[in-house]
Formats: sequence, structure tokens, C-alpha cells
Amino acid sequence: MLINKLAIIGVGLIGSSLSRALQEAGACRHVTGYDLDAENLETALRLGVIHECSADLEQVISGAEVIVLATPLSSFADLLPQIARYASPQAVITDVGSVKQCVVENARASLGHQSIMFVPGHPIAGNERSGAEAGFPGLFRDHLVILTPLPENSAENVTLVTSMWQACGAHVIALDVDYHDRVLAATSHLPHVLAYALVDCLASLTEHDDIFRFSAGGFRDFTRIASSNPQMWSDICMANSENVLRLIADYRNHLDGIATLVETGDKQGLQSLFTQVKVTRDQALSQVLARQDDQATE
Amino acid sequence: MLINKLAIIGVGLIGSSLSRALQEAGACRHVTGYDLDAENLETALRLGVIHECSADLEQVISGAEVIVLATPLSSFADLLPQIARYASPQAVITDVGSVKQCVVENARASLGHQSIMFVPGHPIAGNERSGAEAGFPGLFRDHLVILTPLPENSAENVTLVTSMWQACGAHVIALDVDYHDRVLAATSHLPHVLAYALVDCLASLTEHDDIFRFSAGGFRDFTRIASSNPQMWSDICMANSENVLRLIADYRNHLDGIATLVETGDKQGLQSLFTQVKVTRDQALSQVLARQDDQATE
Repeated sequence: MLINKLAIIGVGLIGSSLSRALQEAGACRHVTGYDLDAENLETALRLGVIHECSADLEQVISGAEVIVLATPLSSFADLLPQIARYASPQAVITDVGSVKQCVVENARASLGHQSIMFVPGHPIAGNERSGAEAGFPGLFRDHLVILTPLPENSAENVTLVTSMWQACGAHVIALDVDYHDRVLAATSHLPHVLAYALVDCLASLTEHDDIFRFSAGGFRDFTRIASSNPQMWSDICMANSENVLRLIADYRNHLDGIATLVETGDKQGLQSLFTQVKVTRDQALSQVLARQDDQATE
Repeated sequence: MLINKLAIIGVGLIGSSLSRALQEAGACRHVTGYDLDAENLETALRLGVIHECSADLEQVISGAEVIVLATPLSSFADLLPQIARYASPQAVITDVGSVKQCVVENARASLGHQSIMFVPGHPIAGNERSGAEAGFPGLFRDHLVILTPLPENSAENVTLVTSMWQACGAHVIALDVDYHDRVLAATSHLPHVLAYALVDCLASLTEHDDIFRFSAGGFRDFTRIASSNPQMWSDICMANSENVLRLIADYRNHLDGIATLVETGDKQGLQSLFTQVKVTRDQALSQVLARQDDQATE
């Protein structure tokens, strides 16, 4: 595959990594970028992440074969109608949003009959850093990218988006929109909420200076995701609020279950629960690692 | 410093790493080991983690200058009186338990006037792996070790335990027992409970196979500590139950606070909270890293 002109709307961690990965793979010729943060855009230009940028969305998009929307979810309602207006009729539009139901609703409302051009996507990759400088070409290698194609998408357009991510070394699968939002609420959105709540809780304690001072690696890993982009993550929680709220309630029940075991001094019950959890996690992880090994040798 | 005979009671991740670190530093001559798991003890012997082992605690301890208790907390009540019986009058006894109030109470009850020999300690290091094979000499390098000395300890004994950990590359500080248990409940015990509760919660969902399948690095880091030793961690929760329960209640309030912001659609409030958390964590982490850099150049 070769994309002659790729337009990246939002040159953050994901947008810049995608551009770098495609350039490294020789899968795109010219990359244009749009970003509300002019300084970030200049950095992207300086680092060769993009070849051209403009504050004029039309110029960035015009003639692009692929347009990737990689901004926080709350900007989609504003950007999608503009993108639809300036996109050439042959263009394929995709996104990298972490919640898909709201994106599909937005796309249907904004794009009308042009929604055939829009193939929703979500790379399961990232870290807590932000901005063009944080991007790197290997971010998607051996990671999953989930597409939630619309019934009106042409097979050709879905294949193009699939090939784009495969060129980055990713493994692409298609999922139902609802199912995507439920599963991602569990694997990603809930853990972020829990990490934010933990740091918020600890910061309110009188000993908070020493708490951070005496923290070891486990604590740092556990709270790493609480350093993620606040706008992006508040957008995600709001966009997937129903699933997130249901899972917070579920989670609270399981936490209360542990608290009850501790409170009643049921050491045996607590140890059984921890053992079960360890077995579950170790097994799940070994399956994921085995799958990645399989892919690596394919 | 040079320890002629070091006795490690419990040759797990911490016990074996301590032995390896001291041997690498040339800070001990002969290491004996005791462990209920005979296979683990054989592994330790084969790997040179210990030079001698026995199912007879007296033989392991007899003549040792330093005796390190590195078993799960629930075994202390059984082991401490035996250790007191077999320890030579010049020996120093220390431990690596993650909760200190219960250890001090146990030591007072078990050791009587011999409690002057016992200097409680806690290395803030570890990972989710267990057993002698998991140990490595660099585990404590640039990490904190907290001692909670008893008023009856001689300065000489406290200095010996301090020197032992410094020989492993650790930074040693002394803390009040209560304060230690409160701070560690926040930085370590609560995060473990939260991670166990998360995996327990997700395993109960109907989509659990896909949840583990679609998990990315953030999720793996976040739940890593849920693969920790179940006996050790149920012991810790029980031994520090008052602090752990208070913090679970605190945490629940903060989690409910986030849920309310999501439920009421207060996007601005949620983003402010996430921003505040990110600033707190990033600042705290940069201070910790700066301190480690300082230590590295000392």
C-alpha cells in the first residue's frame, strides 16, 4: 500500500506515531498536519513527523487519500462536518477514538451520505505521554487495532484502513460497536478511573509527601496511567459514561467483598480470593504473550 | 562490614536477593538457609544463593551473626520464639515484613528481654515474582529500606542492620512504627488490594476472555501487582487491617466523587480533577527521580 497524501488531524502521541510508522514502512509519501497547538505543530514539522501544516483545515485535507482524526473525542462534533466539507470524494476518513458508539453517532449526524467514507478505528496502544514529540514508529507493532466498520462502508475502504494499520505492524480485527465500548470500558477506561481515584485519594492524606517519597516501582506502574492526558480521558469517561458507571459499581462490589474479608478476619477467604486472581491473571497473560509470539513468527 | 555467618529464614524473592547482594558486595562469608519449601531450598543451594541448608532451624541459626526473617508475616509468631531459643547472645535478628506494628508486638511477646537483639526492617523493593530463583543482587540498589528500631535496641545493632542494607546499595532511613504502617498502607497495601479487586471484577464479567485478550500495556502494568504472592499479601492485609480498611473507605469516597462527576455530566469538573491528579503525580515522580539521581552521584 502507498498513500500519496495522508492528513493527520491532531498530531499527538497517536497521530505522530502513525505518521512515523507509515513513513518508516514506506507506506506514505506526503503527510500534512493540523493541530490547535501551534507549537506542537512546529515540533512535528521540525521532527519530520509531518511535511506540511496549516491552520487552514481545507488546505491540510484537500486532496488527501486518507484523513485520520486523532484529536480528543469532544472535538469530533466540530471537526467531522468540516472534514466532510473539504474531503475529496475518493478520500477515506478514519479515527483513533477510544469510544466508538459516540463516534459512529457523530459521523452519521455530521457526514450524512458521506458516512460511507468513514471507517471507525481504535489502536490499542499508547502510553501516558502526549504530543508529537512522544510519538515513535514502533508504538503499534504487535498491538491490536480494532475497527468497527459501518454497514455502509465499502469493502475497499475497510481494506485500505486495515492495510494502513498492518503497515505499522499492527494486528487488525473488526468488532461490533457496542461490544467494543463494553470491553474497552473494562480493560482501559475503568483502570484509568481507578488510577486517577488512587492518586486523588493519596494526595488528600496528611502524609502525602512521604507517600510519594516512599513509593516503589509497583506504585509507580500502578499510577502511571494517572499521568495520561486529562482532556482525552475526561472525554472518554463522558463518551462511554454508561459502561464506565456500570463498571465502577461492579468494581465497588468486588472491593467491598475484599474489605469484608479483611474486616471479619477471614484470612483463608482472602488468600483464596488472591490466589484465584493470581491464577486468572497469570493464565490470561500467558495466553496474550503466546499469541504475540505466534504473530511474531507468522 | 563483613558478616561471617548469615542465616536467611525464608529464601524467597527478598531473602535470596539479600543474600546475593551481600555476597556480590563481599559483605558476607557463609549463608545458611531455612525454608518450608524443600524444593525452593534446593534451588537456592544449587544457585549459590545459600551455602548450607537444613530442616533443623537450630543448625541454620546457630552461630549466625545476623538472622534475617523473610517469611510471610503469619509465620512470625511461630518462628520468633524458636529463633530466640537458638540465636547466639551476640546475634542480631532483623526482618523484612511489610507491616511493622504486628511484628514489634510479636517480637516483644516472643523475645522478652532478647528484643534488644531485634531490629525491625522493611526494604521497599520487590516485584510480583516469588521464590529463590526470582532473586537478584540489584533488587535493593537505590531503593529505600525503612527501619523501625525499638527503644531498647543498641546503637551498635541498628548500625549493623543499616550497614547490611547499605552494602546492598540501599538508602536506609528510620521511621516510627505507626507512621510506617500508615504510609505503607497507602503506597503499597491499598494499591495491591485495588489491583486484586480489579482482576476479580473483570474475571466475573461475561466478556472476560476478550477483556484479557484486548488488554494493552497499561492494563498489564496496572494489574501486575495482582500476580503477587497470595499468602504474603493476605497476611499483610490482615496484619495492617485497620489502616487498610480506613484507606479502602477513603478510596471509595474518591471513586464515588469521580462517578458523580461522570453521572452528572460535569466534564469540566472531571477534567480539572484529572489535571490536578496528573500534576500531583508528575511532580511527585520528578522529585523521587531527582532524589535517585542525587543518590546515584553521591
